[in-house]
Amino acid sequence: MYRSITNRLAVWALLATLLVNFNSQNASGQAPGGELPPVAAQLDSLEGQSGEGVGNSPGSIEAGTHPDLLEAETDEYLKSPNSAPHNAWMLVCCALVLFMTAPGLAMFYGGLVRKKNVLSVLMQCIFLMGMMSVVWALYGYSLAFGSGGPYIGNLDYALMHGVARQWSETLHHPVTPMFDEALPRLTHMMFQGMFFIITPALICGAFAERMKFGAMVLFSLVWGTVVYCPLAHWVWGGGILAFGGESSIAGGALDFAGGTVVHISSGVTALVAAIVIGPRIGHGREPMPPHNLTYTALGAAMLWVGWFGFNAGSALRIDGIAASAFAVTHFSAAAGAVTWALIEWLRSGKPTVLGASSGAVAGLVCITPAAGHVGPMASLIMGALGGVVCYLSCSKLKSKFRYDDSLDAFGIHGMGGALGAVLTGVFATRAVLDISGGEPVGMIEGNYSTILGQLAATGITIAYAAIVSFGLLKLLDLTIGLRVSATSERQGLDITEHGEEGHIFL
Amino acid sequence: MYRSITNRLAVWALLATLLVNFNSQNASGQAPGGELPPVAAQLDSLEGQSGEGVGNSPGSIEAGTHPDLLEAETDEYLKSPNSAPHNAWMLVCCALVLFMTAPGLAMFYGGLVRKKNVLSVLMQCIFLMGMMSVVWALYGYSLAFGSGGPYIGNLDYALMHGVARQWSETLHHPVTPMFDEALPRLTHMMFQGMFFIITPALICGAFAERMKFGAMVLFSLVWGTVVYCPLAHWVWGGGILAFGGESSIAGGALDFAGGTVVHISSGVTALVAAIVIGPRIGHGREPMPPHNLTYTALGAAMLWVGWFGFNAGSALRIDGIAASAFAVTHFSAAAGAVTWALIEWLRSGKPTVLGASSGAVAGLVCITPAAGHVGPMASLIMGALGGVVCYLSCSKLKSKFRYDDSLDAFGIHGMGGALGAVLTGVFATRAVLDISGGEPVGMIEGNYSTILGQLAATGITIAYAAIVSFGLLKLLDLTIGLRVSATSERQGLDITEHGEEGHIFL
Amino acid sequence: MYRSITNRLAVWALLATLLVNFNSQNASGQAPGGELPPVAAQLDSLEGQSGEGVGNSPGSIEAGTHPDLLEAETDEYLKSPNSAPHNAWMLVCCALVLFMTAPGLAMFYGGLVRKKNVLSVLMQCIFLMGMMSVVWALYGYSLAFGSGGPYIGNLDYALMHGVARQWSETLHHPVTPMFDEALPRLTHMMFQGMFFIITPALICGAFAERMKFGAMVLFSLVWGTVVYCPLAHWVWGGGILAFGGESSIAGGALDFAGGTVVHISSGVTALVAAIVIGPRIGHGREPMPPHNLTYTALGAAMLWVGWFGFNAGSALRIDGIAASAFAVTHFSAAAGAVTWALIEWLRSGKPTVLGASSGAVAGLVCITPAAGHVGPMASLIMGALGGVVCYLSCSKLKSKFRYDDSLDAFGIHGMGGALGAVLTGVFATRAVLDISGGEPVGMIEGNYSTILGQLAATGITIAYAAIVSFGLLKLLDLTIGLRVSATSERQGLDITEHGEEGHIFL
Repeated sequence: MYRSITNRLAVWALLATLLVNFNSQNASGQAPGGELPPVAAQLDSLEGQSGEGVGNSPGSIEAGTHPDLLEAETDEYLKSPNSAPHNAWMLVCCALVLFMTAPGLAMFYGGLVRKKNVLSVLMQCIFLMGMMSVVWALYGYSLAFGSGGPYIGNLDYALMHGVARQWSETLHHPVTPMFDEALPRLTHMMFQGMFFIITPALICGAFAERMKFGAMVLFSLVWGTVVYCPLAHWVWGGGILAFGGESSIAGGALDFAGGTVVHISSGVTALVAAIVIGPRIGHGREPMPPHNLTYTALGAAMLWVGWFGFNAGSALRIDGIAASAFAVTHFSAAAGAVTWALIEWLRSGKPTVLGASSGAVAGLVCITPAAGHVGPMASLIMGALGGVVCYLSCSKLKSKFRYDDSLDAFGIHGMGGALGAVLTGVFATRAVLDISGGEPVGMIEGNYSTILGQLAATGITIAYAAIVSFGLLKLLDLTIGLRVSATSERQGLDITEHGEEGHIFL
Repeated sequence: MYRSITNRLAVWALLATLLVNFNSQNASGQAPGGELPPVAAQLDSLEGQSGEGVGNSPGSIEAGTHPDLLEAETDEYLKSPNSAPHNAWMLVCCALVLFMTAPGLAMFYGGLVRKKNVLSVLMQCIFLMGMMSVVWALYGYSLAFGSGGPYIGNLDYALMHGVARQWSETLHHPVTPMFDEALPRLTHMMFQGMFFIITPALICGAFAERMKFGAMVLFSLVWGTVVYCPLAHWVWGGGILAFGGESSIAGGALDFAGGTVVHISSGVTALVAAIVIGPRIGHGREPMPPHNLTYTALGAAMLWVGWFGFNAGSALRIDGIAASAFAVTHFSAAAGAVTWALIEWLRSGKPTVLGASSGAVAGLVCITPAAGHVGPMASLIMGALGGVVCYLSCSKLKSKFRYDDSLDAFGIHGMGGALGAVLTGVFATRAVLDISGGEPVGMIEGNYSTILGQLAATGITIAYAAIVSFGLLKLLDLTIGLRVSATSERQGLDITEHGEEGHIFL
Repeated sequence: MYRSITNRLAVWALLATLLVNFNSQNASGQAPGGELPPVAAQLDSLEGQSGEGVGNSPGSIEAGTHPDLLEAETDEYLKSPNSAPHNAWMLVCCALVLFMTAPGLAMFYGGLVRKKNVLSVLMQCIFLMGMMSVVWALYGYSLAFGSGGPYIGNLDYALMHGVARQWSETLHHPVTPMFDEALPRLTHMMFQGMFFIITPALICGAFAERMKFGAMVLFSLVWGTVVYCPLAHWVWGGGILAFGGESSIAGGALDFAGGTVVHISSGVTALVAAIVIGPRIGHGREPMPPHNLTYTALGAAMLWVGWFGFNAGSALRIDGIAASAFAVTHFSAAAGAVTWALIEWLRSGKPTVLGASSGAVAGLVCITPAAGHVGPMASLIMGALGGVVCYLSCSKLKSKFRYDDSLDAFGIHGMGGALGAVLTGVFATRAVLDISGGEPVGMIEGNYSTILGQLAATGITIAYAAIVSFGLLKLLDLTIGLRVSATSERQGLDITEHGEEGHIFL
């Protein structure tokens, strides 16, 4: 059996990270007063159920996506007689977003690589579903959504402290629904956690077919901590990019469902990774056709379905905004799919299923920051533009600059995300979700300042993700190494990294 | 590169259709009064947010499926304190119905063709998801559900005019949920739009493995406009087949979730298409086994899951009717799967997974018009009969008349749909959904007149779909041609039409 | 054509079972009084709509999972203004649980067998989706959830009698939602029915690649009736294992979502079946690698997604408990996936996608009984322990005792289920769902007695499932035979049992 020092290091680093966090946080937990037996008190500390309730917690649920609505809307929301439909909707959306990572993205990416590497792609998705979730429970959610300052959250929610139900409420009202006046914080935590999973999984498209599994694991762990968590805090946690926030740069950015936090960040990181790790052996000289386009097409369809949870769920409740976000998401995907296929049709006479699938994803990426802010006709335009721009990125741009973004993670998520961020500033309108107190919002309403916030957020996200990712990748490259050996790359990562084969059809 | 005039014509016709509609509708939009800045007024016109609110709109949401309940139920419904659970349920159902087209139907059909044509089938599904959605946004929804007359809707909702939230409401109540007393019209539009996607996709099963992609595109575009939209209007939009409508023929038809509108229409069109385009080269002489029955079985299971959205969602709200529709849908699928497999078992000793899968779909088709009208025991009978009838259609009937309905689109959707329409008249009962003011409904309640409406609707749907489709296909055949060249057909459509290959397993 | 007496016997036995039940129950149905025309009265009897309403029915909905909350909670629940969000959530969960059986489990198991047997695995899943559902409608639900005594339900709900809407309510309030104050019993029936489908499908992993289809059908039919229905009644129907029940053994067991009823029962049966039927030809001598690990990984991801319906749906309503069950389900799966992969990584340097996928499922199984009773940190621990224990079961234990549990149905569901049952007694806390009136519950709260109930339930389930399954399998072996011929086994069950081939890629 082959046991590399590299892999061992990666494992130990991971374990150490988990343990250190577990112990440090555990110690800071406080036992609640009174009636609890000693062991229960310890548990309570472990579970983090002491502390204030959801209604009293410093950052309310709504703060996540629409921070400036906080004061006005929280009261309204908390007085609503029943949070049940919102909770039901959000948990379904959680399931849909997980469904995006696998089977969705796993099939989409898995079909695009060569047969010898398909399991390595699936493994990246499945393992990240595991590891990122554990990190989210331990400290990720807290860093991103703990109140903290403008740059980062705090550790109030670490180890899920204060996220789950309070003990005292339980004793007093044993048969009352726990959170009858607000969305359970657990639900918010879970929904955001699904985004924490898929974002590093998107990056994997750039370095597919050549990166060490151990390096991918360490990179995702650190990247999630030092890039994703701050970004999520900046945009959705009341930080420096929150729309309309007092300390926000250029007025902050509209990012309904993750154009900057998820797509620009992962897309830019993908480009940096593709450049740092270098092209695959034979790139540009030998054909590397997708080994299973049926998976890619089916995966794209699954992403489309799951994206409804991603975008419409980002309303954080079920109402007309969610319906509007659902509809524009669908129309943008549709316009993207049609546009990309039509371009191919006009250029070569052969519209491809890869093109239609990529176009759908491009449309979905492009509409993501705008989902709650634009109307249906604007979404058709955005999807079509997303299709055009991503088509050009994935063909012209890539071939001109010769980086090997293997599965077009940058071409679609980076370019589509940046385009979407800007177009959100163009097409946003009070008519969908009034986040401006009746003042004009987007360029089409005559307000050009929103664009500035969008551009600032895009630029800052690009710069931050690129710089940190570059440093991190270089560091990993110098220590454990990013890349498998040339022999291993030629043989395929399924065998050499995982000791398995995808298909044994004999 | 191969660029056929055919393909170019198809593209330009498509683009022209889109543009003409966009401009004509845009011009008719009216700017709202008062405070809006000029650009916003233009946007408002573009988005179609001027006009009356949901509550005041001429055709209420309920009109869709249960037109005769309109007066009685609308008030009740609009007074309900919160539409949130209904909205949540319906958006989930939207996702489930899209999930039926792809990955569901795409896998089901994709597995049934030969390997060389699998991508062409997937492409049909994915591209239709795009194109039909765009058409739906531009004018499809309006033609089907605009109030109009008994034969067709109008263009009130074209370009989504009046479908999205009103501007004025936004300004007055910025933090109030938009539609707190009714289902958002956007949600209704989206749900019905998912049906508009899947119906032409079902037809593709008939002409698989030999139709030009460009011809499929043009055919679906026109068929959706001139066959689907009127049919949807007749049955669900208050038209000539609406149950209990004043101007309805033979009292109108019970069609809870699309027996006539979706399944009979697509099934009959499939038969016509199979005949007009002619059999595949080698049909009846050489074996054409499904290339991947695992896809077919998995696709059938996905269709089963998605069909809950299709049928139970057709209640257009979440209540006991939805639960009942869910249960009978499940039981009918179950009975169909068991029945078809048992027939095979008794006849050949070998029950097949293709049989069980086809039987499940047959049961699902058969129960579709009846989903909100029959009880669980009736659904077991309907599913079993669906299994028997579709089994006979797909084996005896097809081999006797020698048409090449490649993937049994007619055998299952046409025959199963017609059977279901008739059996709905047999088994419908007030006990599930009282649409008759307490008067007997189905034959088992002693009312034979319902059958007449069902037969009339079935006959009219068959005649209309068959005649229009025949004319349209002939027209296409004489102009751009329906069929790929014999060389192309032998080589497989994946390569010749799309320039791709499904599996590259070397 | 090959027609075996065996297969014919299986078919006739199945048909006879169905018919006998249908007739006997039909006769006992009572026609309601008064206004109904004769045929309608017969239908009513057929549909079982006479009888008392949901609110008055002897066993209320809540009785299912939390029997001891019955008195306290029912009133509260029935007074809730609207059951709509709960109904919506539960129907979505129904769809998710069906999604687990196929495509989820079908892909997970289908990928693990050799190519020649993939359709036989899919067929088991699809056919069981059909047959078990029919059985559930005819008498299964009634046996499990009819009030009856401590050992078995009764036939009150047979043929769905009294499950669907009452006739009289319909006539009186034609436009009122049917069940405006309680979950429709149809919804409860449907949700539990999805569990009835997946449990025998789980067992199929043990005897894959060698069992006769007819024997599998008969076995599942009888096993579902005499093992599953009683177990479900014991734990969730107020029987001898209901937590806190008066006549419960050792105080009854906490089993939130099916640790005993589903996983221990199927896992133990799987072990017995693997032993009785004997190993596959060549087991231990020739390699039998999974033919398609991409299916296995994708299936695991689908199981993960569907499991949210399984566990969080077992709250039987949407509230904070459902959110908590959702979160701990996710974290346990995550911890299981990471742990299993890390063990492989440390031992061989090669973490496998099969390991990560199996670990996720192990974590999901382990948390199932605990889903509504433990907090997030405990779920991480449970998932990790599940990963360790199931890893050892599937490697060391299996190789030591040399039984051929082909797809590790015992190794994961049996061992993981038993571990989960015990750990539920360790980590259960009033802080999540107070089922103890404020008294300590789990070992971590200082209460050691809960463990006794868990151990008792585990032991009783193991003993009952093992003994009955052993007898049943032996009986089938002596009569129709369990195993296909050696020739058939070598050729593959797809061809010999079903006359089909999975992949024809030429």
